[in-house]
Amino acid sequence: MFARQFKIHLLRTLPISRCSSTYKRLLSASLAEGNVVVVRQANGGEPLQFPSVWLRDNCQCSVCFHDNTKSRQANWKRVNVESRIRSINGSHEDNALTIDWQDDHKSTFTLAWLQDRDFAPTNRKRYIEEVYKPTYQLWAKSEFKNVLRTFEFTDVMTQDKVLLEWLESLAIQGFSIVRNSPPNVTVVRQLADRIGYIKRTTYGEEFEVKSKDDARNYAYMMTPLPLHTDMPYYEYKAGINILHCLVQSQSQGGSNLMADGFYIAEKLRKEFPKLFEILVKTPVDWYDIGKDGDMSFHNIWRAPTIW
Amino acid sequence: MFARQFKIHLLRTLPISRCSSTYKRLLSASLAEGNVVVVRQANGGEPLQFPSVWLRDNCQCSVCFHDNTKSRQANWKRVNVESRIRSINGSHEDNALTIDWQDDHKSTFTLAWLQDRDFAPTNRKRYIEEVYKPTYQLWAKSEFKNVLRTFEFTDVMTQDKVLLEWLESLAIQGFSIVRNSPPNVTVVRQLADRIGYIKRTTYGEEFEVKSKDDARNYAYMMTPLPLHTDMPYYEYKAGINILHCLVQSQSQGGSNLMADGFYIAEKLRKEFPKLFEILVKTPVDWYDIGKDGDMSFHNIWRAPTIW
Repeated sequence: MFARQFKIHLLRTLPISRCSSTYKRLLSASLAEGNVVVVRQANGGEPLQFPSVWLRDNCQCSVCFHDNTKSRQANWKRVNVESRIRSINGSHEDNALTIDWQDDHKSTFTLAWLQDRDFAPTNRKRYIEEVYKPTYQLWAKSEFKNVLRTFEFTDVMTQDKVLLEWLESLAIQGFSIVRNSPPNVTVVRQLADRIGYIKRTTYGEEFEVKSKDDARNYAYMMTPLPLHTDMPYYEYKAGINILHCLVQSQSQGGSNLMADGFYIAEKLRKEFPKLFEILVKTPVDWYDIGKDGDMSFHNIWRAPTIW
Repeated sequence: MFARQFKIHLLRTLPISRCSSTYKRLLSASLAEGNVVVVRQANGGEPLQFPSVWLRDNCQCSVCFHDNTKSRQANWKRVNVESRIRSINGSHEDNALTIDWQDDHKSTFTLAWLQDRDFAPTNRKRYIEEVYKPTYQLWAKSEFKNVLRTFEFTDVMTQDKVLLEWLESLAIQGFSIVRNSPPNVTVVRQLADRIGYIKRTTYGEEFEVKSKDDARNYAYMMTPLPLHTDMPYYEYKAGINILHCLVQSQSQGGSNLMADGFYIAEKLRKEFPKLFEILVKTPVDWYDIGKDGDMSFHNIWRAPTIW
């Protein structure tokens, strides 16, 4: 099973600098409950909502915001968080909202900027589902063939479109198979570098799994490796595991088992809620204590089984 | 402010293989509520407690446990989780507990092993406080001089005792000062290698903060950097920040500000519980979008301000 939290630098288009169409109509804005700015767009749709103190704190003028570094130039002595709105004006020309504050400050926000940051519940939901992370697809054993996606190594490495599809399959189904990679030890690193960078662990950046005498890790043993979750003893876990089979076992065996732990957890939550609660609430001591090659480690981590 | 979660490989002695004195007395064990094994030690003290199913699952015999890799040899088909205890015997000779199970399996646990894993609430508390992580010490500005610990670079690098004291200061007070390091760029890496390894970010393994024209990060600007928390836009954060001042500013300024964010959060929790709840429960979109040198990145992360 693969953990599904990972960085998605390349996965989605920018949520911040997204362009909206540049129609020029009057924005209508009002204050609700004294503190919430409600913006009605001329083309209809649900009104945008912003707490006024949040707009004051996120003023985009050159004194308040450093555009080159995309950083707020916070100065708690300067900003009056109690400042109220004196007047709001929607602009014909710029499709923007201008706010005059009682502390004699003026802020201008473009419609595109506001749309991306809208606090209205439907837009926050849209951001989560469409921009932030794709929704997981849970799968049972019977669905395995339907959710399995297979990619060609060369396509992933050379075509950005395929790279995106591969990353989406990892985010949505939690796994995929990459075929026809060359039989050399650089393949894992090539794939990792194509996404970002390798997250090092106490086993180093890469980890060679093979049968070893005097094995100090269960993965090095000749016996079948049962279903397991990797790395529960790390505070700091890899997000994606990339496994590259370099030498296929000539004996019987050598096949892989995989299950969707999130599916199992969800099934447990629904069918055995009390047992689910125990696994969510009971801290367990995970450890990996030993040696690998020249390196000794003593990793302990305390966390519930379902987290 | 430094984040306080970090790996403590070297910080504490082993919780697993801890040796207990080898006195030989009778252990007295009984079953409570049908499913909890209660072990009374001859020298008194609070009784040890273990759910019987947990003892069955953690049987240390060579069929159930692979001692060399410190791994349970799980086989769900073999283990009967419904199996009840037939009899328990404390051994004079080995200071160990032997359990006969109704499924004709036999388990032996030494007293030392049991003491380390005792489920009794007081022992779990002791494990958290004395073995797992030292207790944080929160500090206000007025206490800064009392909590400040200062170390000599050479001592940290050459004396294990000082290394341990340095790591404890980072874990307990959240910061410390290392003085008299040589004026070269390898110092940060030397200190990191002394603990474990550097956790890479999109800025690479190390990060040179200096005034740059066309700054793309606020840290590169000449203006004073206000109090901030580093890296809120990473899912995957460094645990310790090591800052090495290579060139002291010749102008006025160049001093550092530091505050204990955990102290402030605790103060907020007590004095303004509603505001604290908002910061704990409201997800915020953190981002770092831009370029540094040849590298472009687009890091987004959604998390509450207090987590």
